Amino acid sequence: MVETTRIVLASRPEGAPTAANFRTETAELPPLDEGQVLLRTLYLSLDPYMRGRMSTAESYAKPVEIGAVMVGGTVAEVVDSRAPGFAKGDVVLGYSGWQTHDVADASYLRKLDPGTAPVSTALGVLGMPGFTAYSGLLKIGQPKAGETVVVAAATGPVGSAVGQIAKVKGARAVGIAGGPKKCAYLIDEFGFDAAIDHRAPDFAEQLKAAVPDGIDVYFENVSGPVAEAVYPLLNTYARVPVCGLIANYNSAGAADGPDQLPAFYGRILIKSLTIRGFIQTEFVRELYPDFLRDMAGWIADGSVNYLEDVTEGLDNAPDAFFGMLEGRNFGKVVVKVAD
Amino acid sequence: MVETTRIVLASRPEGAPTAANFRTETAELPPLDEGQVLLRTLYLSLDPYMRGRMSTAESYAKPVEIGAVMVGGTVAEVVDSRAPGFAKGDVVLGYSGWQTHDVADASYLRKLDPGTAPVSTALGVLGMPGFTAYSGLLKIGQPKAGETVVVAAATGPVGSAVGQIAKVKGARAVGIAGGPKKCAYLIDEFGFDAAIDHRAPDFAEQLKAAVPDGIDVYFENVSGPVAEAVYPLLNTYARVPVCGLIANYNSAGAADGPDQLPAFYGRILIKSLTIRGFIQTEFVRELYPDFLRDMAGWIADGSVNYLEDVTEGLDNAPDAFFGMLEGRNFGKVVVKVAD
Repeated sequence: MVETTRIVLASRPEGAPTAANFRTETAELPPLDEGQVLLRTLYLSLDPYMRGRMSTAESYAKPVEIGAVMVGGTVAEVVDSRAPGFAKGDVVLGYSGWQTHDVADASYLRKLDPGTAPVSTALGVLGMPGFTAYSGLLKIGQPKAGETVVVAAATGPVGSAVGQIAKVKGARAVGIAGGPKKCAYLIDEFGFDAAIDHRAPDFAEQLKAAVPDGIDVYFENVSGPVAEAVYPLLNTYARVPVCGLIANYNSAGAADGPDQLPAFYGRILIKSLTIRGFIQTEFVRELYPDFLRDMAGWIADGSVNYLEDVTEGLDNAPDAFFGMLEGRNFGKVVVKVAD
Repeated sequence: MVETTRIVLASRPEGAPTAANFRTETAELPPLDEGQVLLRTLYLSLDPYMRGRMSTAESYAKPVEIGAVMVGGTVAEVVDSRAPGFAKGDVVLGYSGWQTHDVADASYLRKLDPGTAPVSTALGVLGMPGFTAYSGLLKIGQPKAGETVVVAAATGPVGSAVGQIAKVKGARAVGIAGGPKKCAYLIDEFGFDAAIDHRAPDFAEQLKAAVPDGIDVYFENVSGPVAEAVYPLLNTYARVPVCGLIANYNSAGAADGPDQLPAFYGRILIKSLTIRGFIQTEFVRELYPDFLRDMAGWIADGSVNYLEDVTEGLDNAPDAFFGMLEGRNFGKVVVKVAD
C-alpha cells in the first residue's frame, strides 16, 4: 500500500482564504487498475483560478468539494505502471492536485521530455499559463506590428509570456507590476518596452505617458484599479482578452457604488471595443500543437524567458498560494514537492 | 436665392432634451458651385444617435455645434444641379439634417430608385438602421441555425431587422418591446418566435421562459434594465453586438450604486462572452453592396417587413424625437418634410 499526504479543502473562504480553509491528511491509495499509473509528485502548480474552485459562486468549472483534495496541475514521476507506454521513471504532466502521490488514468497524462526544458516549465511557460497567454493574445488580442499591448501581473507566467509574444509579433509591450524590483525585471529580462509600478501614487499618469499612441490590446488578468486606469487609454477597435480577474476573486457580495457599468458599457460603444472572456481550454484542440512548437522555439532562440518562484515542500503550499493572491510571488509559483 | 427653414441646436440638454434646446430659423442658401446640387428635403430620419450629438460628452463623432443645424439623414429631390449624373427630379439619399432645403456636394449623395421600394426606406430598412442590424448581427452576432437571438426595441428599425434576419439564418428570434400592441406586431407582422413586454412586472421571468435554451446572441441597443435581465441568460460563447445604449443617453453624471461592473466583468469571464461595440460605418466598405442586394431580396420575397412611424412637417420633428427617446414611436421614425 502506498500512502499519499494531501491537502484538502476544509471549509470555504469568505473573502481572502486562510490556513483554516485547508487541512492536511494522509490516505491509502488503491492498487493500480489496468491503464493506471502510480505517480510521485515532483512539482505542484499554484494558479489564481484555484481561488475560484474554493467557492460555490457560479464559475466555468465545478467547485472543489469540502473534504476533497485541492485541484492543481502537477509534474510527477511514474513509480509503477499498468499502462502501455508509461514506464517507471517517466516524467509526466498530470492533474493530481495538492498531494504527494496519486493513482491516475494514463489517458489524462502527457509524457514530458526533460531534454527540451526543465520539467517544471510544463506548469508555466510551456503549460497552461503559457498557453493562456499564447491563445488569448493571438486569437483574441491579435496584436499587429507597431501596436501597443498592455498586460498586468506582468512578471507572472501569463503576463510575462503575453509581453514577450507581443514583442515577437512586432508590437510594443508595456507591463504593469508591483514594485521597482519587478518593473526592472520586466525591462531587463523580459524585454518589455516600458514597465509601470501600479503601487505608484501617479500610476495612471505614468501609464498614460508610457502609451503615447494609446492601447490596442489590453490582456486582462487582474481587473480592479489597473483596469480603471487602462480603459480610458484604449484606442478605437482595441481588443481586451479577459482571462482572469484576480482583484475580484476575494470579494464577497455586491461592490460599493457608484455604478461604473453604464460608463464602461458606453466606452465599449464609443470606442468599438471587443471584450472577450476566455478559458484556454477553448483553444486547446485548435492551437496546442502550434503553441508547443512556437514556444519551445522562442525559448530556444531567446525570444521568451521565464521566471519561476519555487516553494519547497507541500506543507508550504497554502502560504505560497496566499502570497500569490496578494501579488507577493515573483514569477510562476510552483511547489517543489519532491526531488 | 433659395431659402431654407432649419432647426438648429439652441442649447445642450441636461438629461432629457426639451423644445428649448432647439430653435427654428431661416437662412439663404448660397448659389451652386460646380459639382453641387440644390435639394428639397422629402423625408428626414430621426435616430437615437442624434441624442449623443447634442452633448459634448466623449463620443465616436463630433457634437453638433450650438447654432448649427441638427444633423440627420434625408431623402431629397434634386431641384437644380451643376453635378454630372444628377438631374432635376432625381431622388437622392443625403445628409442635409433638419431643414427643408440644402446645397450639397453630389459626391455625398446616392441616387435612389423609386421602383425598388418607397424612397423613405432608404432611411430605414434599406438604409443606416437596416445596415446596422445586418452588419452587427452577421459580422459580430453570427447567429447559427437553431440558436436564440434576443433584441430589444424590437419594433424599431434596427430591432425588427435583427429579428427577421435572424429568422432568415435559421435562428430563433425573441423580441422585447414596450406594450402589448408592439408585442403582437412582433409576432404577427415581423414573424418573431416570442415577444416580451418589458413593462410587465414579471418581465425577467417571462424572458427566461421564452428562451428555454438560453441566449446565444443579444443584440444590444438599449442597455439598462432589459440588459440586466438578459445577461444572466447568456450561454457560454454568447455574442453581444453593442450598437446603442438608448437607456443611458439621457443620464447625466455618475450612476447610483451598487457597482455592477465587477459582476458584469466576472460574467464575461465565466461565460466566455464576446462584447463588441460597433458603428455601422466600420463595415460599409466590406458589406454595403451585399446588404443592399440581400435586404432588397428579403423585402421582395417577404422575409423582411418594415414599419414606419411618419410625422408630418419639419415643425413636429422635435416632438417626434422626444417620443422616440421615450419609446413612444411605433416603427422607424421619419418626418415627412415635403411631398
